[in-house]
Amino acid sequence: MPINLASGSPDPRTVPLEDMGRLVDEILVRRGREALDYSETSGDSDVRGRIAQFLMERGIKAEYDDVLLTNGAKEAIFLVSELFSPNTVSSEEPTFQGFISTLSYRGIRAYPIPWDEQGPMLHIMERRLKALKMWADPVKYFYVIPVHNPTGWVMSLERKKYLMELAQDFDFKIVEDDIYGVFTYDSPPQSTLKSLDSEERVIYISSFSKILSPGLRVGFIAYEGEEIEKFRRLKREVNHQVSTLDQLIVGEMLKKGIIEQLLESSRSLYRRKRDLMMQSIEEFFPSSVGCTFSRGGFFTLCRGEGIISNALVTESAKRGVRVMPGELFFYSEESGRNSFRLSFSYSSEQEVKEGVKILGQLLRERR
Amino acid sequence: MPINLASGSPDPRTVPLEDMGRLVDEILVRRGREALDYSETSGDSDVRGRIAQFLMERGIKAEYDDVLLTNGAKEAIFLVSELFSPNTVSSEEPTFQGFISTLSYRGIRAYPIPWDEQGPMLHIMERRLKALKMWADPVKYFYVIPVHNPTGWVMSLERKKYLMELAQDFDFKIVEDDIYGVFTYDSPPQSTLKSLDSEERVIYISSFSKILSPGLRVGFIAYEGEEIEKFRRLKREVNHQVSTLDQLIVGEMLKKGIIEQLLESSRSLYRRKRDLMMQSIEEFFPSSVGCTFSRGGFFTLCRGEGIISNALVTESAKRGVRVMPGELFFYSEESGRNSFRLSFSYSSEQEVKEGVKILGQLLRERR
Repeated sequence: MPINLASGSPDPRTVPLEDMGRLVDEILVRRGREALDYSETSGDSDVRGRIAQFLMERGIKAEYDDVLLTNGAKEAIFLVSELFSPNTVSSEEPTFQGFISTLSYRGIRAYPIPWDEQGPMLHIMERRLKALKMWADPVKYFYVIPVHNPTGWVMSLERKKYLMELAQDFDFKIVEDDIYGVFTYDSPPQSTLKSLDSEERVIYISSFSKILSPGLRVGFIAYEGEEIEKFRRLKREVNHQVSTLDQLIVGEMLKKGIIEQLLESSRSLYRRKRDLMMQSIEEFFPSSVGCTFSRGGFFTLCRGEGIISNALVTESAKRGVRVMPGELFFYSEESGRNSFRLSFSYSSEQEVKEGVKILGQLLRERR
Repeated sequence: MPINLASGSPDPRTVPLEDMGRLVDEILVRRGREALDYSETSGDSDVRGRIAQFLMERGIKAEYDDVLLTNGAKEAIFLVSELFSPNTVSSEEPTFQGFISTLSYRGIRAYPIPWDEQGPMLHIMERRLKALKMWADPVKYFYVIPVHNPTGWVMSLERKKYLMELAQDFDFKIVEDDIYGVFTYDSPPQSTLKSLDSEERVIYISSFSKILSPGLRVGFIAYEGEEIEKFRRLKREVNHQVSTLDQLIVGEMLKKGIIEQLLESSRSLYRRKRDLMMQSIEEFFPSSVGCTFSRGGFFTLCRGEGIISNALVTESAKRGVRVMPGELFFYSEESGRNSFRLSFSYSSEQEVKEGVKILGQLLRERR
């Protein structure tokens, strides 16, 4: 088996399979009919209520009716992108490859805003917004992952407040993808953009894919504005609903506090693995290759002059290590070509160290 | 609880909940990591292989790679509709409300072809196709549910052959929705259109929603033509994949022969309930209301002069009986306004009889 430093799946060792087995048994015995029948398009209302409660820990006051369940955060992005039209979208760059592919599917170009360690570089955005104001197509939506994929950087509170101000001044909405939001390693989980919002400016997206399992397809949109109706209509059109069994499993795990326990224990596991990956990079990578210091989420993004990411991916696969080519996370191939993404979430600690070591060797040989 | 003659869900008494509980336990214990991780976009390849095998009983030779799992047949329709463009689609009428709503979402109008007891009235279609041939926009796709929703009629083999000939002569593809195909009551399951196809003309859609459970979202497309790539690309864009756990549950039930047993037992159960519903209609409905004699699937469509379906739905709900307004199944509201659909699948035998009796009373009072 290759060492998988490509996957954005959670560490499979974290999931309490026995608890889960018991829980599914209980669901089938006590609520079997319900578990196997259709649910509402938005999702089971109890489960949505539990999720609204869960969101309080992210500083978000949501009613169950503001929550729409989706088949993972990917489907949430697909539904929200229904609002987009050409030239009205901006996003951070680099960003989630699934967002870039959604735009490309819809034939839409985003204005990319680069990140630094504090978040998207909003002074660049502000300048651009001022320039655009003179023209016909203003930015209407900005997509951001505050605990960032692929860099592992964490957006600062100051930067978040700045973004909220820009959104007010230039009248755009923010699509906040908080899928890694609960995983910060050098500070407690940070305030969400949504928690700073009192004007229906932030459409909040998240999922249980990174906490529990991406195979259970339970993501969601939380939004109190009228557009939620549009998302619901499209959800009904696309596939009616999320798997009822998956919904009830997540609902029960929230109710029994299993998700909360899981969060605690996996946060410290990932902190250890983050440390190990950063130390191993320090130890094994040549100094010509620089990697972002991951403060949250599952990843670090590495760059080095002369790296051709596709060649590196192929070469490292031959040596038994899977990594992600960096260009997937950029709008133009060229911007990402000399970078690659490493994940410390999925593989064991031993594999993380071993994988980085093998990569380091490869990177040194290249020179 | 109202008597539910509206739902198209299977009878919840048919699902072997204990077997299922054991099976899920086994999956989580033996293949837990896999069950909770991402699958391929098309679905787990073993599960697709099992489905390909299952399709042999429908006379279909498919490879696992021709199968793309979808979140229910509804999502299959959504994916396939990506091929449609204005004026290139025709379908039976009445038809599944979810197909009509997909077209309406895409802003597409279908040429409707009426049913008689043998299937869509293809001489009407042929006449129309000949007329259309002179013009720029030929029909490219025809949607049909051979074991029919909402009438319960079953398309004859002769009519199927006629349709295949038309498809060749006028060069269009057929979207065959076989979701009720295994449920025929006065004859063994009939040959599918797909089984008559050797030219990649039939895009086959089905699901386990009616056999097992609509809450597990496991539908699929089976098609060997190159368009399957387009569906796969869109599936990835929409939500990446079907719930892995749901996939594995269906796969294991196929493997262990549970689905086959279930099919046998539910077919005779539904035959009894069909008989009971038709007899009860005979006994309790006024002669001014005529209902289609259901030979397959879950439904009968009833019509009567002067019926206003929405008023009937409201009135019958007040008396504790839920039915579906007929106009949902027609492209123009007017065509369906004097009709309503009854289902015998979901409610118990006692409820079916009682529900029809209450409706009969209501229909008599109306006069």
